[in-house]
Amino acid sequence: MDVDQYMVELGMAARAASRVVAASSTAVRNHALLAVCDTLDGARAKLADANAQDMERGRAKALDAPLLDRLELTPVRIDAMLEGLQQVAALPDPVGSISDMRTMPSGIGVGRMRVPLGVIGIIYESRPNVTVEAASLCLKAGNATILRGGSEALASNGAIAKCLVQGLQAVGLPEAAVQVVATADRAAVGKLIAMPEYVDVIVPRGGKGLIERISKDAKVPVIKHLDGVCHVYIDDGADDKMAVSIAVNAKAQRYGTCNTMETLLVAESKAAAVLPRLAEAYAAAGVELRGCPRTVALVPAATAAIEQDWHEEYLAPVLAVRVVADLQQAIEHINTYSSQHTDSIVTRDHGRAMRFLREVDSSSVMINASTRLADGFEYGLGAEIGISTDKLHARGPVGLEGLTSQKFVVLGEGQIRS
Amino acid sequence: MDVDQYMVELGMAARAASRVVAASSTAVRNHALLAVCDTLDGARAKLADANAQDMERGRAKALDAPLLDRLELTPVRIDAMLEGLQQVAALPDPVGSISDMRTMPSGIGVGRMRVPLGVIGIIYESRPNVTVEAASLCLKAGNATILRGGSEALASNGAIAKCLVQGLQAVGLPEAAVQVVATADRAAVGKLIAMPEYVDVIVPRGGKGLIERISKDAKVPVIKHLDGVCHVYIDDGADDKMAVSIAVNAKAQRYGTCNTMETLLVAESKAAAVLPRLAEAYAAAGVELRGCPRTVALVPAATAAIEQDWHEEYLAPVLAVRVVADLQQAIEHINTYSSQHTDSIVTRDHGRAMRFLREVDSSSVMINASTRLADGFEYGLGAEIGISTDKLHARGPVGLEGLTSQKFVVLGEGQIRS
Repeated sequence: MDVDQYMVELGMAARAASRVVAASSTAVRNHALLAVCDTLDGARAKLADANAQDMERGRAKALDAPLLDRLELTPVRIDAMLEGLQQVAALPDPVGSISDMRTMPSGIGVGRMRVPLGVIGIIYESRPNVTVEAASLCLKAGNATILRGGSEALASNGAIAKCLVQGLQAVGLPEAAVQVVATADRAAVGKLIAMPEYVDVIVPRGGKGLIERISKDAKVPVIKHLDGVCHVYIDDGADDKMAVSIAVNAKAQRYGTCNTMETLLVAESKAAAVLPRLAEAYAAAGVELRGCPRTVALVPAATAAIEQDWHEEYLAPVLAVRVVADLQQAIEHINTYSSQHTDSIVTRDHGRAMRFLREVDSSSVMINASTRLADGFEYGLGAEIGISTDKLHARGPVGLEGLTSQKFVVLGEGQIRS
Repeated sequence: MDVDQYMVELGMAARAASRVVAASSTAVRNHALLAVCDTLDGARAKLADANAQDMERGRAKALDAPLLDRLELTPVRIDAMLEGLQQVAALPDPVGSISDMRTMPSGIGVGRMRVPLGVIGIIYESRPNVTVEAASLCLKAGNATILRGGSEALASNGAIAKCLVQGLQAVGLPEAAVQVVATADRAAVGKLIAMPEYVDVIVPRGGKGLIERISKDAKVPVIKHLDGVCHVYIDDGADDKMAVSIAVNAKAQRYGTCNTMETLLVAESKAAAVLPRLAEAYAAAGVELRGCPRTVALVPAATAAIEQDWHEEYLAPVLAVRVVADLQQAIEHINTYSSQHTDSIVTRDHGRAMRFLREVDSSSVMINASTRLADGFEYGLGAEIGISTDKLHARGPVGLEGLTSQKFVVLGEGQIRS
């Protein structure tokens, strides 16, 4: 197979399908999502067979245990896929809304209409349920999708793709509205990210390595989420109990997530009061501490942090801790080391809270809340396709709105330029 | 000089300055703009000297007349620069506004705060007045700017840069908030577009060649404006008088602008009524017509269009004309050949008007208005730094808002993730 030619054919079909999907009604797209739900439910045996093939091949290739776990399509995971489809169908449709319509001196009305992006390429790793999650959000927002999953999930993704096609057919939408790349050839990814004439945006979902490779080579805009080096700063005068509660939750509620705190900053006036209490709580949770000299002086169990610790996304029960002079130094530390994902201040002082909000340059900035709350569901977006650490277009959790664009619409009565 | 090292120094200084500008008040930034206005006004003799050097070198290098014209800083152009600064100072400040604040089930308030992008790189060609225009919009929106003008305007841009620095100093903002690249070495551009750690977005202003080169090599997001292949479609049943008025204005009001119509589409039911009248008006204006066979049959003066004509941005008194069966074919033509800049329908029919609005995939879509109205001033944006034909981030005329981003802000009272 000529992979480039194959990808161009997918791209052309997606572009044509995207026009039809963009012009379809909300009702038709919702019916398609519910039809996919039905076909997946009816295809459980086929999905299990296909997934068993992938699992067997994975074991033969000696894939590691976490990867095999992510690859597995259990009945519970299929249930979750179906529930997700129903939830996406129930979300409000962002497409077509017109905002900010105003009459200009010339008499024209100028507003902005929310429209689909067009064709979205999704590149992801082993989890086959992403196929349904990503396709359903893109379809709801009026887009066509080209999905490229991991080679280890090829059979599972192929079986899911058949259900997606059946759902689209059931409501008369073009099959090419959702296409799954049917080759494990790596050249397919290279071509997918280099066809701006057919693909409007790439959303990579996976580890930092995958995302960096794609961003480096892409000729199409990428909505990227690199790492989450998130901070909590305990301000001068903060409530001790709240500070401890947030700092423990932000680190220890879950370790492997991007919105988990990786560095704790404490105002020097608060260090003696909260650090020993926190050290106890972290010790109970099994969290290892790496601290600045003043932290180590207060918490003997902490080891000395090195420069690299301030940059590190541990994704593990390890936390870097630094005592800072004041808010100014905390903001400087964050704007130097943060990955611009999510940073939070615990404070009672309104002026300092607002200054933190304004001056911390991250996609989510919080006052008196755990960084673990940075999430599409917690923010009321309904669902998210990822969390963007970019500044342009979508920033922070990306829901349906992030999968759309706004164009200017002008309503005239014959106006011309004079 | 080590150009890479020089650019890194500019980048680091810009990044540091961007934090200070972002944290500055609206009043301080407005005072800076007015201070620049004063220093430029007081430096008219120096500006004239510097510009005379550039003009002399340009003539010695035998630059062509339009380029020399764009290079010249006449007293009238300096007046326009000063007026522009005052207008930008008077615009509302987009930075800091919080929208969509809503309370979530967990009790946190979630909203979006408009914030500066950070550091903006502007790459432009011969017109030295762009230095002030671009710098003032970026500064107003709270950004630091690195400006790289054409080598032919080096002395003029240097003289303007001195005035900018004096204005910044007068209000205590860092000098590095606006920096003009002081070398004609082309490697400076290559480095500027490849420092994502110091530059958040690149705005190229100039011809298609410049923008394509920059987009191809950039490692930083680019807000780009390629070409303007704009269409007017005269629908079945359109008012003849309005159709002729809009079609003549969209083509003949000015030829060299990106929002000028380049292809006219006419519903076959209207062709006999409007094409001969339009042909007369275009002949009077000196516009050459290149038509499809049906156009040529109705307008003997028209020559036969070839495929390339439907792709062409003439920027000249030439117009491609095609008779189409209906709205469907018009939309298909536009979505095939348009550069997604601006397209307009002339119609009386509400349903078809709304369908055109929804289905034409361009940055501005108009009903009963001349494409020449696609413009930041006409849209009430106050000023524009360019017109984006991208879909992500800013689409259409880019004003102050397009030079900002939105981050999520979360207001809690101790909420944690359960």
